Amino acid sequence: MKLHILGCHSATPRSVAFPSSQILEIGNELLLIDAGEGMQIQLRKYKHKFNKIKHIFISHLHGDHFYGLVGYLSTLRLIGREKEVHIYAPVGLKKIIELQFKITQTDINYPLYFHELSSAGSEMILDTAKFTVETIPLEHRIYTNGFLVREKPALRKLNIEAVRQYPEIETWAYHNLKKGKNFITENGRVIPNAELTLPPPPPKSYAYCSDTAFKPDIVPLIKNVDLLYHEATFLEADKNLAAKTKHSTAKQAAEIAKNAGVRQLVLGHFSSRYPDETLFEKEASEVFKPVTIAKEGAVIEI
Amino acid sequence: MKLHILGCHSATPRSVAFPSSQILEIGNELLLIDAGEGMQIQLRKYKHKFNKIKHIFISHLHGDHFYGLVGYLSTLRLIGREKEVHIYAPVGLKKIIELQFKITQTDINYPLYFHELSSAGSEMILDTAKFTVETIPLEHRIYTNGFLVREKPALRKLNIEAVRQYPEIETWAYHNLKKGKNFITENGRVIPNAELTLPPPPPKSYAYCSDTAFKPDIVPLIKNVDLLYHEATFLEADKNLAAKTKHSTAKQAAEIAKNAGVRQLVLGHFSSRYPDETLFEKEASEVFKPVTIAKEGAVIEI
Repeated sequence: MKLHILGCHSATPRSVAFPSSQILEIGNELLLIDAGEGMQIQLRKYKHKFNKIKHIFISHLHGDHFYGLVGYLSTLRLIGREKEVHIYAPVGLKKIIELQFKITQTDINYPLYFHELSSAGSEMILDTAKFTVETIPLEHRIYTNGFLVREKPALRKLNIEAVRQYPEIETWAYHNLKKGKNFITENGRVIPNAELTLPPPPPKSYAYCSDTAFKPDIVPLIKNVDLLYHEATFLEADKNLAAKTKHSTAKQAAEIAKNAGVRQLVLGHFSSRYPDETLFEKEASEVFKPVTIAKEGAVIEI
Repeated sequence: MKLHILGCHSATPRSVAFPSSQILEIGNELLLIDAGEGMQIQLRKYKHKFNKIKHIFISHLHGDHFYGLVGYLSTLRLIGREKEVHIYAPVGLKKIIELQFKITQTDINYPLYFHELSSAGSEMILDTAKFTVETIPLEHRIYTNGFLVREKPALRKLNIEAVRQYPEIETWAYHNLKKGKNFITENGRVIPNAELTLPPPPPKSYAYCSDTAFKPDIVPLIKNVDLLYHEATFLEADKNLAAKTKHSTAKQAAEIAKNAGVRQLVLGHFSSRYPDETLFEKEASEVFKPVTIAKEGAVIEI
């Protein structure tokens, strides 16, 4: 799992500062999380293959999180997309996109599915062979979800040296061994799986929480995740402004990370009022480490 | 008058290649013509003051000409816009923008006026003290207008040396002289205006024609303009594709420029199929000169 930051700023644009958008890479698949304006330009710039994106997650319907989506969907048509696209977003986005396609006379020639979200509680919205995605209900000025992506345990790895001790284990049996099954010889002897395989790398997990007021009740949901991306629109000095606009401070994001025992924290969604973004990192690191600040084009190994 | 190119490419995005958007600078005012995605990022990059834009012209409702508008209008709210904004665009844009403001719960706190266009013929859509804007009906797959901006004649310039020959001409009389009136002394003697003033620089004109099939009947409308921006999505080798998609080739754009006797031609809206954009300039220059190709960030003196 790798997180690619396409944009990580709040709504007011600065030159060369894109709003929220990121790619979560899982194996050969790319999940797109939020789609601020200019997202498709960033996709090209960082050489992500448009066709590898099948699932798109939109946290909430403020423009800095989705105004780049309609242009991206139009481009998919132009480049001859055939595979289906799934969009998981609050109720309302479907209407916005469909109206624009209607008025621009755009015929989408690939299957496009909207999964409209409105649940107040966490729900599982995607369950594939390799990973699941659940919503993290957040508290903002408008209905908002974060997203929790969990890899499923991978197959065990063959211990080839050990396997070779047993000529009776032929290659057709390997898949069952990787799945954790014991090997049973023709005369009924059991060779325990633990002797023949090694454990897979532990499955990774990622939680995206933006935009939200300080919301400690998400802690149980995101307990022990490997990477938490949490918004930090403000610094603690502007705590009242954060509360009023239902955003978080860097310190509050760090408290969530600490209480959830996450492995690492990345901060994003910075307000343009602060000229020096390292202040976010400094403030958070007094509560939780390791913490980094998101930067456009950054790739974070999970 | 100066033309600032913010973006000049057709719909398929390349990295760092923005779709159609430009600023026409007239005196202290900026007119925004088309608003492709990322337009507000470009405005910041090239340091245009958001507040100087009062009039916005949208040629047609294909996404690469307006998907940047809603984000820009949202930003105006965030930065405390108070002055009114006028949008001249085909019927349909108002509905798109208003739906997005409704669903994103965006309260626009400045006066925003939509002037919806649907006329098949050319019409005067703006008439200010300093300039006028008329539509240029174009032929595309969807209802499309170009825009013709004409400065009004400026005031004449005082010939200060000549004026000083007449002590009886006091400063209160200067404004009437600039307007072209003769000076009449207390005893009724007429001093002709031509003796006291110099002619102003000739008023300038600019025509924006994008997107359009080859359409020779626009020639009388844009006769003798100082600058013509004409789309050239294709090269002549792909003339059939141009006709089919209702776009123009570089050669066709040059023929329009030649027949209209314009002073200079700028080409834009290039398809991404051509790796070398100087081919557009080469092809057009065989028919008409001077011709240049639009580039992001270019400033063209009119």
